[in-house]
Amino acid sequence: MRLSKLPLATLRETPAEAEIASHRLMLRSGMVRRLASGLFTWMPLGWRVARIVERVTRQEMERIGAHEILMPAVHPAELWRESGRWEDYGDLLLKMRDRGEREYCFGPTHEEVITDIARRELRSYRQLPVSFFQIQTKFRDEIRPRFGVMRAREFIMKDSYSFHLGEESLSDIYGDYRQAYSRVFERLGLNYRVVQADSGEIGGSRSQEFHVLADSGEDLIVWCEGDDFAANLELAPALPPEGDREAPGDAMTEAHTPGMRTIRQVAEHLDQPLENCLKTLLVKAEGGGVVALVLRGDHEVNELKATGLPEVAKPLALANAQEVAQAASCPPGFVGPVNLSVTTYVDHAAGHRANFACGANRRDKHFVNVNWGRDLPEPECVDLRNAVEGDRSPGGGGSLQIARGIEVGHIFQLGDKYSRSMNAVVLDENGAEQHMQMGCYGLGVTRTVAAAIEQNHDERGIIWPEAMAPFSLVIVALNIARDEEVRATAEQLYAELQSQGVEVLFDDRDASPGVKLADADLIGLPHRVVVSARGLKQGTLEYKHRRADDAERLSAAEAADLLADRARR
Amino acid sequence: MRLSKLPLATLRETPAEAEIASHRLMLRSGMVRRLASGLFTWMPLGWRVARIVERVTRQEMERIGAHEILMPAVHPAELWRESGRWEDYGDLLLKMRDRGEREYCFGPTHEEVITDIARRELRSYRQLPVSFFQIQTKFRDEIRPRFGVMRAREFIMKDSYSFHLGEESLSDIYGDYRQAYSRVFERLGLNYRVVQADSGEIGGSRSQEFHVLADSGEDLIVWCEGDDFAANLELAPALPPEGDREAPGDAMTEAHTPGMRTIRQVAEHLDQPLENCLKTLLVKAEGGGVVALVLRGDHEVNELKATGLPEVAKPLALANAQEVAQAASCPPGFVGPVNLSVTTYVDHAAGHRANFACGANRRDKHFVNVNWGRDLPEPECVDLRNAVEGDRSPGGGGSLQIARGIEVGHIFQLGDKYSRSMNAVVLDENGAEQHMQMGCYGLGVTRTVAAAIEQNHDERGIIWPEAMAPFSLVIVALNIARDEEVRATAEQLYAELQSQGVEVLFDDRDASPGVKLADADLIGLPHRVVVSARGLKQGTLEYKHRRADDAERLSAAEAADLLADRARR
Repeated sequence: MRLSKLPLATLRETPAEAEIASHRLMLRSGMVRRLASGLFTWMPLGWRVARIVERVTRQEMERIGAHEILMPAVHPAELWRESGRWEDYGDLLLKMRDRGEREYCFGPTHEEVITDIARRELRSYRQLPVSFFQIQTKFRDEIRPRFGVMRAREFIMKDSYSFHLGEESLSDIYGDYRQAYSRVFERLGLNYRVVQADSGEIGGSRSQEFHVLADSGEDLIVWCEGDDFAANLELAPALPPEGDREAPGDAMTEAHTPGMRTIRQVAEHLDQPLENCLKTLLVKAEGGGVVALVLRGDHEVNELKATGLPEVAKPLALANAQEVAQAASCPPGFVGPVNLSVTTYVDHAAGHRANFACGANRRDKHFVNVNWGRDLPEPECVDLRNAVEGDRSPGGGGSLQIARGIEVGHIFQLGDKYSRSMNAVVLDENGAEQHMQMGCYGLGVTRTVAAAIEQNHDERGIIWPEAMAPFSLVIVALNIARDEEVRATAEQLYAELQSQGVEVLFDDRDASPGVKLADADLIGLPHRVVVSARGLKQGTLEYKHRRADDAERLSAAEAADLLADRARR
Repeated sequence: MRLSKLPLATLRETPAEAEIASHRLMLRSGMVRRLASGLFTWMPLGWRVARIVERVTRQEMERIGAHEILMPAVHPAELWRESGRWEDYGDLLLKMRDRGEREYCFGPTHEEVITDIARRELRSYRQLPVSFFQIQTKFRDEIRPRFGVMRAREFIMKDSYSFHLGEESLSDIYGDYRQAYSRVFERLGLNYRVVQADSGEIGGSRSQEFHVLADSGEDLIVWCEGDDFAANLELAPALPPEGDREAPGDAMTEAHTPGMRTIRQVAEHLDQPLENCLKTLLVKAEGGGVVALVLRGDHEVNELKATGLPEVAKPLALANAQEVAQAASCPPGFVGPVNLSVTTYVDHAAGHRANFACGANRRDKHFVNVNWGRDLPEPECVDLRNAVEGDRSPGGGGSLQIARGIEVGHIFQLGDKYSRSMNAVVLDENGAEQHMQMGCYGLGVTRTVAAAIEQNHDERGIIWPEAMAPFSLVIVALNIARDEEVRATAEQLYAELQSQGVEVLFDDRDASPGVKLADADLIGLPHRVVVSARGLKQGTLEYKHRRADDAERLSAAEAADLLADRARR
């Protein structure tokens, strides 16, 4: 495509509203344009990328035998009332009334609609398992749409749904989807992880998320290179430390820690390592009162784990000053497990410390040289904390790593949640009615485009993975309007590369070399070749890969074949 | 694809709600399923057809250099208020409010959004002409959704918009679109006509419609094989008759026509041919009073032409009995042009009659042997009627034909309607601001699928044009569950045809021969091959084209190559 024909308005300035790199770069490179809050138009270059993601996803869905369909975007309220989600889904559901005052919503997901189809069409176990997918525009009325297409209100998802007699079949097909999603992200050239996930509002039992790794990711994910373990931080177990606890040393004494409210201040004041200072959180208990949670000073409490304890109130809430005073006779900041008369849970890592410091349950006082089993009873140890980098992997393959990720896919074993609430049954081999088991599987098509940019960019612009680039190669012809040899050479190269099956963008605009080179970096195609008068005098063109530091010179005569070999995909 | 894996529930019964063939057959063959009024799910077979229409359309759009984009489905109300259509579009516009009570609509068309993009992105005449297209889900809140996907509320359109400096450029690109649309419908194998059309509510000047011919079509279209003329019936000129008017004969006399209210009754009673009996319609005049319109008894008044006369009120409305009595001193049915003292327009064909009959402006009386220029003044002749089959073509190429058509495409020269109301300007060569000229072009993707079926079906089912069929060929294996040789032969044929690039549907279900053959006809693939024990005994398979009356026998050994040649596409 000729850039002179593309109505591409690249922006030099960073748009003020753009908070993350992908949003900035997609606006600057003209890949998307904002229509209203959370609503974007996909412009020609951006849409080419989205269509690549669509195509690869469709191919992998077809490969595992899923049937492509298209369900309506507009759903009648009755179906959502049947599943209970007309209310439960909350304000994310964009509702509307038609001319006859009947209620509808713009579908944010299609469990209700597909279950309605399944209960009408599927009659017998012989038709199972079966799985359907669609690639479709969805709408979630986000409270605060942000990050461009990353968290837009209107977006494109590939969503799939599978139907089964029995959990084994569900588990098999779930495995197929897991592989298919992995192939999609591998083929797109993205660095991703599959992690155990919480099932959240969709319900059901087992689920995994696919995360593209990127520093701007909203989720923390934990994995081990040496084994298959990977999980969302909130779900990653923190194993108990190995080896014996250190032996007790000097006797416990009280130290003066005036006005020190944070565990860091205490550690510094006492000249102790942070991990040897235990913090005691008093949190609200189910049905009133408080529960004490004891962790190492350098560890963070994990909400999901803490609220998994029967006594702890959901959602997790710290006790207020009055409750703290009542339970520990001191202000917050000085609470400790010694002689504390409330239910106390101790994190494994805290329970493995010896000769540690902790609050003394008196204002401005801490104990030092405290030992479990000597100065207070042996603790009841549980897993209370977030895993940290270097922790042992639950998979046994080494130590854990942590990074930020962007969720681009999510696969669920829904079980019979919807087939029960909407009564979707088939006849089994014995002619008896059985509720179908269901799986659902989502892949964010438009979000994957943004995630790819978050993972692949530098200060100059986007760096597309080869498979996702809207074009493979850009020909930058310098001073094309004034130099006939440059024009002729560039035109010929353009024609030759196209005839060799390369997707080429030809910057034939009458613009300055600086603008053209900056735009080439901004748009971020993998391969760039510069045609200039200076090079042509020496019979060369200048080639540079977007990830390379330096350019190389190619013989102008051989350039077409050489570039075609590199850029064909 | 194996039919045993496809969750296809074909229906023997004709669904009660289906009024036209495509609706009936799409439901019966499981191509679509109804979710709610005007909302359909595209099931696997149907969706394959829709995707073929999408693909061919996309290719032809790319061929004329249009840029693919994707605009949001949800539009902010402000844009529609700016163009004035928030109110003007009426109840067809599905409106909604988000969580912040801001107003939106589900876009039924995208002139407002694309004009907003154009006024932001396009700055200079150098960027023009440019044209954009998208393939997208739209919504029109029809008063009475019917005919299945033919007039669904949610549907898929390919819509394009072009921007120009000057009308010549608009006219050029409009011509490109005309050709591109023609290529789409030709490639799909449909019998279609391009007709002059009224511009309707979108506004603007010139427009043409693309109609797929089918008896169930809602529009009457008129064309001439011998020249390029084709138009919607409402727009087709009816030329004046050629040759001289017959000479007057016997003197005018009054005839008794008691209680005869219709022109047919009068003609029969007077034993006159219908075309020799003129009817006189009194219609309401602009600003009060009535106007008389005189036509041949066998001709129909054309509303658009009648309301094009300055005196006639819009919309066209017949005078009531009181107005008739006041103007003609008689009841409706006996009005005639003789001594009628209201403004009278006479259709060319009526003005060419001699010795005709007409109302006498007296109850139960008609005149016979009436002659223009003798019994009443020479008439003021205009074109008032609908064209009829056999009329001379305005193109001069012969006589007109009339058929019913289904509108599947519409191209418009919008001019500056939107660029003025929304102030979309570019700088011209002299640096002066100019409102851009716009074109818009719509092609109904999902509607084309239904239109193809309306045009191509018989009492047994669909007869897909080769290019549109969801698969090219179906292998029907009879008694496959009990006959090992049938199974082995069919499986081998399936594998061979697929390896030769044929899109094959394999009916490997354990169902009766009757069910399988009926389903094959219903689904309507062009090529069918039956594998049966009886045939195999003689070393043959049975081949039949869906349009052929008789089957032919193929040597089983050579069948794969032969079928591949016929069915590959």
